Amino acid sequence: MISKNQIKYIRQLELKKYRKREGVYVAEGPKVVGDLLRRYQPVAIYATEEWIKMHGSEGVMEISDDELRRISFLQHPQQVLALFPIPEKVISNEVVSDKLVLALDGVQDPGNLGTIIRIADWFGIDTIYCSEDTADAYNPKVVQATMGSIARVNIIYIDLLTLINNLPSSFPIYGTLLDGEDIYQQPLSHEGLIVMGNEGNGISEAIRQKVNHKLLIPSFCEGDTAESLNVAIATAITCSEFRRR
Amino acid sequence: MISKNQIKYIRQLELKKYRKREGVYVAEGPKVVGDLLRRYQPVAIYATEEWIKMHGSEGVMEISDDELRRISFLQHPQQVLALFPIPEKVISNEVVSDKLVLALDGVQDPGNLGTIIRIADWFGIDTIYCSEDTADAYNPKVVQATMGSIARVNIIYIDLLTLINNLPSSFPIYGTLLDGEDIYQQPLSHEGLIVMGNEGNGISEAIRQKVNHKLLIPSFCEGDTAESLNVAIATAITCSEFRRR
Repeated sequence: MISKNQIKYIRQLELKKYRKREGVYVAEGPKVVGDLLRRYQPVAIYATEEWIKMHGSEGVMEISDDELRRISFLQHPQQVLALFPIPEKVISNEVVSDKLVLALDGVQDPGNLGTIIRIADWFGIDTIYCSEDTADAYNPKVVQATMGSIARVNIIYIDLLTLINNLPSSFPIYGTLLDGEDIYQQPLSHEGLIVMGNEGNGISEAIRQKVNHKLLIPSFCEGDTAESLNVAIATAITCSEFRRR
Repeated sequence: MISKNQIKYIRQLELKKYRKREGVYVAEGPKVVGDLLRRYQPVAIYATEEWIKMHGSEGVMEISDDELRRISFLQHPQQVLALFPIPEKVISNEVVSDKLVLALDGVQDPGNLGTIIRIADWFGIDTIYCSEDTADAYNPKVVQATMGSIARVNIIYIDLLTLINNLPSSFPIYGTLLDGEDIYQQPLSHEGLIVMGNEGNGISEAIRQKVNHKLLIPSFCEGDTAESLNVAIATAITCSEFRRR
């Protein structure tokens, strides 16, 4: 039986300050936990009989459906909840400068962040740099929204300006901006940093000045006022354009 | 002052059966209500002093912030809530057969539906046909997720099979399917019906048989198992491909 202290410990991991202090985060459900187990060693696994029948009981604490409901962050808990260590990330310039990577400058919404991690995974982008004011990728809502992609994409929190200043000055920094050039008509390289901005304000002024390839996703909507695209949708269209070439 | 009966009436509109019975739906906030007012006559407008100062008081019932909180479906109510009549839609084959339209076959999540309506608006697709088991576009969550695009896109609930059977047999019916051809390499026309399926099960069997141009958005993710894209993300990438040509 799970103890009151264990329940309290897990529930606290909803907050970033406890995740940071403990260095662990929560993942739930057979898909997300299964994807993570393929790459990472868990700190703990709590699972119902149903999950254990499929995956074995080694290192697993069996709990009842009722106990799972008490520790779960999901509306509909799914068989298993596991704790994983937050990976320590080491950054080197080589990692950035021979491939396509994403940089998120202040993305706030956990759902958007989770969806963007899933998009990166789909398009074979294995590293996302996040500004310190971007939502925390280890928030349970983000982890679930990634549908397991968090197991395959490296998420690195960093001062984006410092990162960019350490890159060679010729390195392509792409950003979607209102004064950008039609993305469908522009040459796009196989290496570069693609910056996506905050939901309301876009890319911050300091980073905008570092963007040396300004892109625009044109609207095909006639009349009325200019509308906007959600940041996850804009990320998908941008990544699709880079990869199809 | 707003009456208890008015509050009850508005709150009930969260449920489809009441929206259907009354023929009205709820829109909130200056952006969404403003976009709708440009095209549609409201049934009622409830607004705080702040909104009235900007937009005038004609036909508006002034309410307090506290009253707005009591009728609002938002976590953070925004100045105005208005009721609009659910438009009566007339379908003719001509409407379908000279342009690009979307068909949603069982999209369940209100957030996805709202985002898809917003994507359609961005890409100049002015009509979306929805199967009867697709989420209701006049659900307050969907209306808000469209960010005002619901004012510019016609949403028509219809039996998709009947719709397709009434089209000329040569008419292009596109769908993204696991056995489809790479969308980046396929010729795409300027007219056609693009079918997007349910979050879990994709396009239903009956409709799948009517798809005469099978498309696939290829993944660039190496190794591991095949992942999936969220339906709104897949819609964005597909629409982008059609429009960029």
